[in-house]
Amino acid sequence: MKIAVLGGDGYCGWATALYLSQKGHEVAIVDNFARRQWDFELGVQTLTPIRTLPERLRAWQRHTGKNIDLFTGDVMDYEFLASVIKEVEPDAVVHFAEQRAAPYSMIDRKHAVFTQVNNVVGTLNLLFALRELAPDCHLVKLGTMGEYGTPNIDIEEGYIEIEHNGRKDVLPFPKQPGSFYHLSKVHDSHNILFACRIWKLRATDLNQGVVYGTVTDETALDETLINRFDYDEVFGTVLNRYCAQAAVGHPLTVYGKGGQTRGFLDIRDTVRCIEIACLNPAAPGECRVYNQFTEQFSVLELAHMVKTAGKKMGLKVEIDHLPDPRVEAESHYYNAKHSKLIDLGLQPHNLSDSLLDSLMNIAIEYRDRIDPSLFMPQVNWRNATNERRRQVGGAAAASVSQTR
Amino acid sequence: MKIAVLGGDGYCGWATALYLSQKGHEVAIVDNFARRQWDFELGVQTLTPIRTLPERLRAWQRHTGKNIDLFTGDVMDYEFLASVIKEVEPDAVVHFAEQRAAPYSMIDRKHAVFTQVNNVVGTLNLLFALRELAPDCHLVKLGTMGEYGTPNIDIEEGYIEIEHNGRKDVLPFPKQPGSFYHLSKVHDSHNILFACRIWKLRATDLNQGVVYGTVTDETALDETLINRFDYDEVFGTVLNRYCAQAAVGHPLTVYGKGGQTRGFLDIRDTVRCIEIACLNPAAPGECRVYNQFTEQFSVLELAHMVKTAGKKMGLKVEIDHLPDPRVEAESHYYNAKHSKLIDLGLQPHNLSDSLLDSLMNIAIEYRDRIDPSLFMPQVNWRNATNERRRQVGGAAAASVSQTR
Repeated sequence: MKIAVLGGDGYCGWATALYLSQKGHEVAIVDNFARRQWDFELGVQTLTPIRTLPERLRAWQRHTGKNIDLFTGDVMDYEFLASVIKEVEPDAVVHFAEQRAAPYSMIDRKHAVFTQVNNVVGTLNLLFALRELAPDCHLVKLGTMGEYGTPNIDIEEGYIEIEHNGRKDVLPFPKQPGSFYHLSKVHDSHNILFACRIWKLRATDLNQGVVYGTVTDETALDETLINRFDYDEVFGTVLNRYCAQAAVGHPLTVYGKGGQTRGFLDIRDTVRCIEIACLNPAAPGECRVYNQFTEQFSVLELAHMVKTAGKKMGLKVEIDHLPDPRVEAESHYYNAKHSKLIDLGLQPHNLSDSLLDSLMNIAIEYRDRIDPSLFMPQVNWRNATNERRRQVGGAAAASVSQTR
Repeated sequence: MKIAVLGGDGYCGWATALYLSQKGHEVAIVDNFARRQWDFELGVQTLTPIRTLPERLRAWQRHTGKNIDLFTGDVMDYEFLASVIKEVEPDAVVHFAEQRAAPYSMIDRKHAVFTQVNNVVGTLNLLFALRELAPDCHLVKLGTMGEYGTPNIDIEEGYIEIEHNGRKDVLPFPKQPGSFYHLSKVHDSHNILFACRIWKLRATDLNQGVVYGTVTDETALDETLINRFDYDEVFGTVLNRYCAQAAVGHPLTVYGKGGQTRGFLDIRDTVRCIEIACLNPAAPGECRVYNQFTEQFSVLELAHMVKTAGKKMGLKVEIDHLPDPRVEAESHYYNAKHSKLIDLGLQPHNLSDSLLDSLMNIAIEYRDRIDPSLFMPQVNWRNATNERRRQVGGAAAASVSQTR
């Protein structure tokens, strides 16, 4: 298949682009390198030393003989996006090209507005471009399990049958997102469902859980292909951050009681889920929703798993409970369905001891690159002004020990 | 109370500002006159000859001795909006300052993007401004009944108790909006609910039905105070449009079968509902939702009512069924709850024969200003490009007769 991966230089996007290329698909990456710019803005960097995208793509060709096309530009720019769709004529577009960090969207008003405008307009542009230029192309859109929040009922995959006053209907599952970022994905979901309805577009909305891991078979071929590993408080997902903390002897930063339960998945399952979605396109007019995760954990359970794994390696790992910078339930019911991708053939990589060991080994391998001042939460959901000012060196370290 | 009316120069906003001023509240209008600009863009004008806002405000002061402050600017401009909130120190902000026409949002990609960015960012700015400068101020936000779509179950007021697999929760009512405009209001609703939750803001989200009528006690004081009466296919709400059509002997333009059933209300009830909401503020952290309409009708039922009223006046009124330019169910179940505003004291003005007569009389009084080429739908939900090119005079008339 011809597949365009929007946001193909990012964490999930890069792993996905390589996987799809390895599987024999014709892959084109579209990226504006916004993710790298946000690292500069926040004064952070990935634990792993990622290379520029042209270097990565040359290495991929050297190792596999496979070519991945690159289109540099912003999906907010309709003329650019339309020209890509026209040139690539994709069978599927995988859309990762959004601002994807909840804390980033909560820094202040400007970051909230940027996140919602960037994500919503990028997706609107894509819907209009597909309608105009490739109405049969399958949109594979990355949503998030965070769209649902933590309702006191089972979470279904996108839709729920409701019986009410003696009548029944199948309706979109009610959404209770927990940040301006998560809200942007809810807005996208509503826009996509509508576009499928009125224009008979095909879409799969993948409500992805929290992704962990960095190595896939493809990125392991050469260090030049190495993927991002974000451990900072803004872009670092929780398990990656814990492993980095354990590697340098920093207490694991559990927010509040740690009973916050979420769906998680290995990045090797992310890439497989994307391929499964592409190979099994939605019907014209259909907006399918799959919950894309494999296991549920509370963030405290994960901390204990990292502590145990660290102990085996001779690391002394402490667990700190910080005041929760987010507004969220710290203990709650959580039971989210996730059978549709399994039914289509996903074989999950569960979070085993061996995977945790390998994650810890990566963190240890690159630990000289870790800046512990990036661990502590500085973005506060309750504080509207959130004027985040990254301090460097001694000052940052001081602020960390002050908070503990 | 001190009340800021954002969008106070528009159809509902103007009537509301005068009503609240007459009731003794201190009113400030905030407007950027975007609504008047859209008239220029589309080549349309209100049936009634509205005056500039400064003329209107001088006439109001002349007749009542009451002053309404005016702040000219765009709620998309945070610094402007924040300066208004700081100066006015409102007890309530009534937020009408959005692009409010479904067809306008469906003209093409640019109008869709404009509508969503304008509405979503304006409301985000307001939420951040209230949080920063007036956290106790009550936000009274205009939503729309169109957020719900036409589910096959009863529509509740904002939230629904769902029992599922033996567990229960009260969740936001699922939304199935029918245009990029209606979607923008759904996005707003999610953003507002979240802001109330994390910042303890007070909000009332008024899901308003289709408004009809133009005269209120206040606007009737002097012709200089006259309100808008839009009859064109983009901004004209259905009943107003039918009355204008009847007045010039143009067939009533019913879209499709006409079984599309919606909630409706008299503009005199709009203004009263707003005051009721202001006088009964939501609690801190509460995001209340009221369904603001008084009666349900199908658009075909309304056409027959206008036909009957026209007959009494000696007008021969025909009904045309046009291919529906919208994607919507043309016959469906519809039963939407609307008791909360009644419980707070709303006494509805139902759509009686006498009201229809007065509406028709206004249409007849100003019928020389009617351009029949504005009646026919030119915006097509199914056509992504929708390059709307208003033709004038003969050409437009030709396109009308062609469509009939």
